[in-house]
Amino acid sequence: MTTFVEPRLPRGMRDIMPQKMLRRRYVMRVIENVFERFGFEPLQTPALELAQTLTGKYGPDAEKLIYDARHREGKEDLALRYDLSVPLSRVVAMNPEVTKPFKRYQIAPVWRAERPQKGRYREFFQCDADIVGASSMLADAEIIAMIFTILSELGFDAFVTKLNHRQVLTALGEYSGVPPARLGGLYRAIDKLEKIGREGVRQEMIANEIPDAAVEKILALVALPVDDLHAWRETLRAYPRGVQGIAELEQLLGYARALGVKPARLQVDLTMVRGLEYYTGPIFETVVTEPKIGSLTGGGRYDGLIGLFSKNSLPATGTTIGIERIIDVMDELQMFPPNLGKTVTQVLVTVFDAERRAAALALTMELRAAGVNAETWYDADGLGKQLKYAAAKSIPYALIAGPDELAADAVTLRDLVTGEQTRLARGKIAAHLREKFSIA
Amino acid sequence: MTTFVEPRLPRGMRDIMPQKMLRRRYVMRVIENVFERFGFEPLQTPALELAQTLTGKYGPDAEKLIYDARHREGKEDLALRYDLSVPLSRVVAMNPEVTKPFKRYQIAPVWRAERPQKGRYREFFQCDADIVGASSMLADAEIIAMIFTILSELGFDAFVTKLNHRQVLTALGEYSGVPPARLGGLYRAIDKLEKIGREGVRQEMIANEIPDAAVEKILALVALPVDDLHAWRETLRAYPRGVQGIAELEQLLGYARALGVKPARLQVDLTMVRGLEYYTGPIFETVVTEPKIGSLTGGGRYDGLIGLFSKNSLPATGTTIGIERIIDVMDELQMFPPNLGKTVTQVLVTVFDAERRAAALALTMELRAAGVNAETWYDADGLGKQLKYAAAKSIPYALIAGPDELAADAVTLRDLVTGEQTRLARGKIAAHLREKFSIA
Repeated sequence: MTTFVEPRLPRGMRDIMPQKMLRRRYVMRVIENVFERFGFEPLQTPALELAQTLTGKYGPDAEKLIYDARHREGKEDLALRYDLSVPLSRVVAMNPEVTKPFKRYQIAPVWRAERPQKGRYREFFQCDADIVGASSMLADAEIIAMIFTILSELGFDAFVTKLNHRQVLTALGEYSGVPPARLGGLYRAIDKLEKIGREGVRQEMIANEIPDAAVEKILALVALPVDDLHAWRETLRAYPRGVQGIAELEQLLGYARALGVKPARLQVDLTMVRGLEYYTGPIFETVVTEPKIGSLTGGGRYDGLIGLFSKNSLPATGTTIGIERIIDVMDELQMFPPNLGKTVTQVLVTVFDAERRAAALALTMELRAAGVNAETWYDADGLGKQLKYAAAKSIPYALIAGPDELAADAVTLRDLVTGEQTRLARGKIAAHLREKFSIA
Repeated sequence: MTTFVEPRLPRGMRDIMPQKMLRRRYVMRVIENVFERFGFEPLQTPALELAQTLTGKYGPDAEKLIYDARHREGKEDLALRYDLSVPLSRVVAMNPEVTKPFKRYQIAPVWRAERPQKGRYREFFQCDADIVGASSMLADAEIIAMIFTILSELGFDAFVTKLNHRQVLTALGEYSGVPPARLGGLYRAIDKLEKIGREGVRQEMIANEIPDAAVEKILALVALPVDDLHAWRETLRAYPRGVQGIAELEQLLGYARALGVKPARLQVDLTMVRGLEYYTGPIFETVVTEPKIGSLTGGGRYDGLIGLFSKNSLPATGTTIGIERIIDVMDELQMFPPNLGKTVTQVLVTVFDAERRAAALALTMELRAAGVNAETWYDADGLGKQLKYAAAKSIPYALIAGPDELAADAVTLRDLVTGEQTRLARGKIAAHLREKFSIA
């Protein structure tokens, strides 16, 4: 045994205490339930991957955020996973026999050493659902329909999914004539169109050393409405990738409608850019518009990623749902169901005195066997201290069985919110509580 | 983007594919449900702890198995958690305001670089429930009653919890006169009594350089029945820790009985030793006796651990449930409920042809809205390929809506196990499937 150590968390890490965990779990269960209704199945991958599995997948800025790990006597260079898409691609490459399309979900932590700030942690959960082995735009439309179902069931009612296509962005680059080395700067500028306007984009492109001729061509292009597929197709008609990308977006929109997604919830934005390097097809991002809380999910098609691990690549599309942000927003907006409760415990079975302890323990076990979440009191304390504990934990009910009650084969049920007390026959209490808490 | 990398897992790590995940989740949900019925609440701690938090807690052999981690530009020495008890102690020390007793559970992975072997992995889940802030033996008895409830509800019916007390072991050391430096060797020998018998223990003690006089005293002591509390108390009467330990075991047994634990399921074994250095009171281990599959859970009281992080220590007791082993054993013995299923998907809505796709998509979404787990087909393939997919995934039903069915406003439901087909009115299908799968 060692001596005293000051108890501290690593930078950017946190503990999640029970009350918060109950809200967190509520969100995870809703998401998991929708994933499964759409036929996605759970997969688990290890937190540690070989470092080489992660290297070169996310771009140099992202790669700097990866945590390295190593066993003291081990020879392998390990790393903590940075996302759930690269591990999925590794799994698919290692298990070629898996039935396709392979629809999996994973809800698990990832680690990124970003600068800590409010609401941003270095360990956070991602919630991914992906379809591997389907190239049809219907697969992308299913992902979008699923995001809509999840956000609706969580209680969001004003949100929109913005859509673009990686190949349209590629064609836009070709059309502009910007040299490959400057393309990143071009995309970064265009992505800000909504925020800073055309003049802002001009300044940004100049700052990013985009040649003048290209600046003018791009400004003409982004003068077109960002959702006007016909106009963009006309302008990009000499660039097959652009034409193909727009055709795919049209298919995707058709399938999404057939899946019941309201047209108002979909918004083509041919200037939207998403960061991760591996997208190849449609890309999407869902933002809550009222209140304006920004992006809650993102995703897209990445037909090349699995090919980095396997000679036979496979088409793939999917989404990451920003569960940490969803939980924070739902907390702020008080969107959790009022009956969620602050504790799992439904009733505290008090111990009147040492002589009546055995009766209290038997009652507690009987309630548990009936599916009721029940606690009892461990020490030799008066009723006051026990009820104070129940109040501190927001336990909704307490059961009291003193000499009077025991003589009458009864118990007193106290509602700890209203203070109301009811005397019930001992044999009726389990059924009474089961009904109160709708225990099936 | 980088070039081809051979897809590999780190040594001792594994992926868990969907079919296996469903069984795993079943076990976790049963355990979680029992934890909550006993009033334990979920807590989450980060996978990464400061290295100093873990150092000196587990003994030198265990400590060698810890994984170190580091952010490339970070200054902190980090480590992946080795268990869930030390992080709990840190949390309690950092959050002194938490209501006591604090009853928490955590189901989460831990990492130990043990030599990989069948059924043993370097990342595995632990399932811990602990009570902090209660010194009563009733708290220990609750843990034991909870273990019994969990194993019973999982379907185990021949198991027994062995009980001992750390202070009885300490008294046994004092009684033997073995010098402190040799105590480890003494305990290792005694722990094998059941396996190798008294003569074996004698040889083992000699091999461990226990002085002859001590060997004789210990052999006389372990000649007593290992569950005879009276006889051991008599022998150890000059050693207050031993007397106190035995008194606590008697209290614990009384409380366990009051909680309905059958006496046959509890077995005092005053020669049982458990590894972790931090135990201070009762220790327990539950073994399944038929079939003989060994230990599934272990735990005990550790009143000193929180004191390593805080000036005010707090009594604590709890258990770790060996969920990985439980899953393996239940797999081997085919103990999972037959209706658990090999896939989450309950029905595949087939797409008859491109013309009827929109109808199939609308039906799929309708089923999902009704709570049915439904998939549809993404590509332009014949019915044969779609049904082959459903068979490969063990999806139990397929829905077929061709021109005949659509004309009659009907669908055909095919049972993919029996091959039986039923034609149902389009408006009845959701309710029909909800009933088949008991969807509430």
